[in-house]
Amino acid sequence: MLEHRRYIQTPDGYFMVLRQGDDVFARLEALMKEEAVPAAGFVGFGFLRQATFGFFDFDNKAYRPKTIENLELANMTGTLAWKDGEPAIHAHGVAADSTFQTFGGHLLALEVGRGSLEIHVSVFPTRLERALDPSIGANVLQL
Amino acid sequence: MLEHRRYIQTPDGYFMVLRQGDDVFARLEALMKEEAVPAAGFVGFGFLRQATFGFFDFDNKAYRPKTIENLELANMTGTLAWKDGEPAIHAHGVAADSTFQTFGGHLLALEVGRGSLEIHVSVFPTRLERALDPSIGANVLQL
Amino acid sequence: MLEHRRYIQTPDGYFMVLRQGDDVFARLEALMKEEAVPAAGFVGFGFLRQATFGFFDFDNKAYRPKTIENLELANMTGTLAWKDGEPAIHAHGVAADSTFQTFGGHLLALEVGRGSLEIHVSVFPTRLERALDPSIGANVLQL
Repeated sequence: MLEHRRYIQTPDGYFMVLRQGDDVFARLEALMKEEAVPAAGFVGFGFLRQATFGFFDFDNKAYRPKTIENLELANMTGTLAWKDGEPAIHAHGVAADSTFQTFGGHLLALEVGRGSLEIHVSVFPTRLERALDPSIGANVLQL
Repeated sequence: MLEHRRYIQTPDGYFMVLRQGDDVFARLEALMKEEAVPAAGFVGFGFLRQATFGFFDFDNKAYRPKTIENLELANMTGTLAWKDGEPAIHAHGVAADSTFQTFGGHLLALEVGRGSLEIHVSVFPTRLERALDPSIGANVLQL
Repeated sequence: MLEHRRYIQTPDGYFMVLRQGDDVFARLEALMKEEAVPAAGFVGFGFLRQATFGFFDFDNKAYRPKTIENLELANMTGTLAWKDGEPAIHAHGVAADSTFQTFGGHLLALEVGRGSLEIHVSVFPTRLERALDPSIGANVLQL
């Protein structure tokens, strides 16, 4: 079976169309490696089979996760950068169920559902790295 | 009465300011035709007299709609493309009422309220078409 | 103590990383003045110590405010322009609490929490001004 193309170039970066079953973060990481993206901002939207949100618990230094299924992703906003030589994606989102009720926050994982997910990636030519800021115990993008 | 200008050019596309009573999708379609926009991504926000959201019911192959009035549009994220020679807009949004409760999902229609609605359109120079993907029964943007 | 850099240039404008305790609107106003930004669109996301939303009450010509603490800012969408020679920021947002419940609407103020807040600013080279539209009693961006 022929694999669909997942992205094209735009004047400022890339435009991606992901397909049912795609792991969104894995596809963004593949883009970063294939195209050697130094850093980027992105926005996206589409339909999700499932999304896992996480709220960071500073006491336990871990995300409290919640997975929700069959959602419209109303908006995803994020950035692409690097950490220890590997892609480091940071993304937040708002998703809505069949009653239009919304859920939002930090995204830990998301998979495209019966439909597609479109992402516009704006490349920044400066390579950016995330690093732990010990004063707050969280990763912060270093400028 | 003098008609207000609805958009200006930006380095990457267009910036629109829509006015009370404007049909948002009709204004985006007019932009696509007047400027021969091959494809684009956009983000917007503003105040709505009403928004109609729809959640797709695959069993009945139709959107279950819900119309809500007097909302702040917190974010609209979408793309402009073509289908059968006509503009084909795909947009999701999150809107909030006077108590800051939010509603989100796929947008079927929206009209600007007492205020304005601002949209930043980033043009992609490749003409893109939506087509029905028979394996999922939904339109997907073809790259 | 060394002050962290708060922004870098991108091909289309600026990319900001704000830090714990930062007043987001004050930082955006400082960027506008330092870099003489004529106008811009922006999107951002991050973690907030607090956000104040406001819904405009046309009868009393004032915002009914609500302040919420410790939120993930899932998305902020806005524009930078000028009014009477001073920066005039217009921003909407969607934020989520530790249960992933969301709040949205017009943003009156926001302060970065334990983490950071990332903003991508796309500059428009045309200077834009907001002005009161007497027919609706609200500020509208003039094109």
